[in-house]
Amino acid sequence: MEKEFVFGHQNPDTDAIGTAIAYSYLQNKLGYNTEPVALGEPNDETAYALKKFGFEAPTVITTAADKVNAVMLVDHNEPQQSVSDIDKVKVTHVVDHHRIMNFNTANPLFYRAEPVGCTSTVVWKMFKENKVEIPQNIAGIMLSAIISDTLLLKSPTSTDFDKAAIEDLAKIAGIDYQEYGLAMLKAGTNIASKSEEELIDLDAKSFELNGHNVRVAQVNVVDLPEAMERKAAFISTMEAASKENGYDMFMLLITNILDSDSQAIVVGTDETKKLFEKAFNATLTDSSVALPGVVSRKKQVVPPLTEAFEN
Amino acid sequence: MEKEFVFGHQNPDTDAIGTAIAYSYLQNKLGYNTEPVALGEPNDETAYALKKFGFEAPTVITTAADKVNAVMLVDHNEPQQSVSDIDKVKVTHVVDHHRIMNFNTANPLFYRAEPVGCTSTVVWKMFKENKVEIPQNIAGIMLSAIISDTLLLKSPTSTDFDKAAIEDLAKIAGIDYQEYGLAMLKAGTNIASKSEEELIDLDAKSFELNGHNVRVAQVNVVDLPEAMERKAAFISTMEAASKENGYDMFMLLITNILDSDSQAIVVGTDETKKLFEKAFNATLTDSSVALPGVVSRKKQVVPPLTEAFEN
Repeated sequence: MEKEFVFGHQNPDTDAIGTAIAYSYLQNKLGYNTEPVALGEPNDETAYALKKFGFEAPTVITTAADKVNAVMLVDHNEPQQSVSDIDKVKVTHVVDHHRIMNFNTANPLFYRAEPVGCTSTVVWKMFKENKVEIPQNIAGIMLSAIISDTLLLKSPTSTDFDKAAIEDLAKIAGIDYQEYGLAMLKAGTNIASKSEEELIDLDAKSFELNGHNVRVAQVNVVDLPEAMERKAAFISTMEAASKENGYDMFMLLITNILDSDSQAIVVGTDETKKLFEKAFNATLTDSSVALPGVVSRKKQVVPPLTEAFEN
Repeated sequence: MEKEFVFGHQNPDTDAIGTAIAYSYLQNKLGYNTEPVALGEPNDETAYALKKFGFEAPTVITTAADKVNAVMLVDHNEPQQSVSDIDKVKVTHVVDHHRIMNFNTANPLFYRAEPVGCTSTVVWKMFKENKVEIPQNIAGIMLSAIISDTLLLKSPTSTDFDKAAIEDLAKIAGIDYQEYGLAMLKAGTNIASKSEEELIDLDAKSFELNGHNVRVAQVNVVDLPEAMERKAAFISTMEAASKENGYDMFMLLITNILDSDSQAIVVGTDETKKLFEKAFNATLTDSSVALPGVVSRKKQVVPPLTEAFEN
């Protein structure tokens, strides 16, 4: 059978990379010939999880059509978050937990999405449905993905399915998930060693909102005031990136993973900043504002922005 | 729990209506509060199947937002094939077996598509995955849907899953599926009692192909030459419908369900007729051409048309 790549979104996180590994394993068990790859290097948190469960980082690709004819997507569907030449390959499978936007195909395909906290939770269900046994290391990397996306089940995106998956996978992996989860999340919060350029690109996604090109980046920390000391540098870096890439708005969400609070830093046009303030019913002071309780880009940022931009 | 409507596409066929009934039953068993409805009256074939298994025709709706806030779609996703005010309701679930096109959401949702012959085949899998028992009448209407969409497993869209589903459902329904299937398909081929206006709208779908508004209708018969005697009337009716609705091309596929052959009648602009000929490597003579072996709009008509229109 012809080989297909399996990969998650650009600027990959633990869900994008971990679920690509797990879904590729499952599909190979079901008779496909797949290889997990990634659209970027693992971040510190993902590297921690890969090492813990004995995985090498997947090969990084920037194009797909020169190597395969068909691909399977995990943890994304929007073309601008995918491989650069996604329009030149056939998408045969998608497993995701996001909204569907600008995803069009010429042919029927396998598409499986559920509104749960993590793509690995959907893949965990698929292992069960197909009665495929989950090896210890695959359980570990899926567990890591779910801990990452749900902030140890504290994100409002968490569902009962995510909790059931975490408990089952922790058992298979032989891991105390609370202890491991906190250590893994903390491994991703070391921002002192990184430049502002790196931090605003680490976990950043682009969205087309009613014709506007909107960038939303997120950085996890354990000390918000320490991160906000670099605010002026973040602003000038985000302004430069917006100019270079044509973003109409750039929002950086700095999230304290211990108490589930965030600060937002926003640069953009007067129009888009007004729309941001409308979306969150909040006033930017010197380009920033506290967003208490906001931790999920998908559930607490993109929907209000979408609504504000469309009305 | 708030009520949601479950429905298939406009000009409903046995899959659209039968699967809405079956999926609504499954979802209610899983704790949702749903009602199957339809975007049109059942055709003769569907009416035969509903009567056979003791179902009333679902209520016909033309709008949804005045009655519910949220809906579940079966057997379609393209907005122009859906309820007229689909943009005013939230789509929470989709089960389908078609390409994905112009389907965009603001929020994550349940989306389950597989490239199999019939949506009921996917729903059959979901009954099994969720360990919900299939009642005899629900098995019968799902069986009818799969027989209809796969032309008794003779369509090239048929897969091993469709075959397995038919055999399992026939057993539950206590039906000889070959005998019942032929009788049901034949019930849908009585074109003598219908006007050309009715026939070109019975099983018709609109597609946006690279900016062109393309209509593809299909009529099942057991006697092709008899149907082609009405060609001149079909052409003038299709031309009038194109003018009224702004179709750039209207293709009518008349399919002999007994020997899996079709005749196409095509009206449109010189440009779109040229694209049709390119798509099928065939020459229209007086607006029609034989398409031997072509029985599936989804697999044998839309993909070549899409490719021809895009290049």
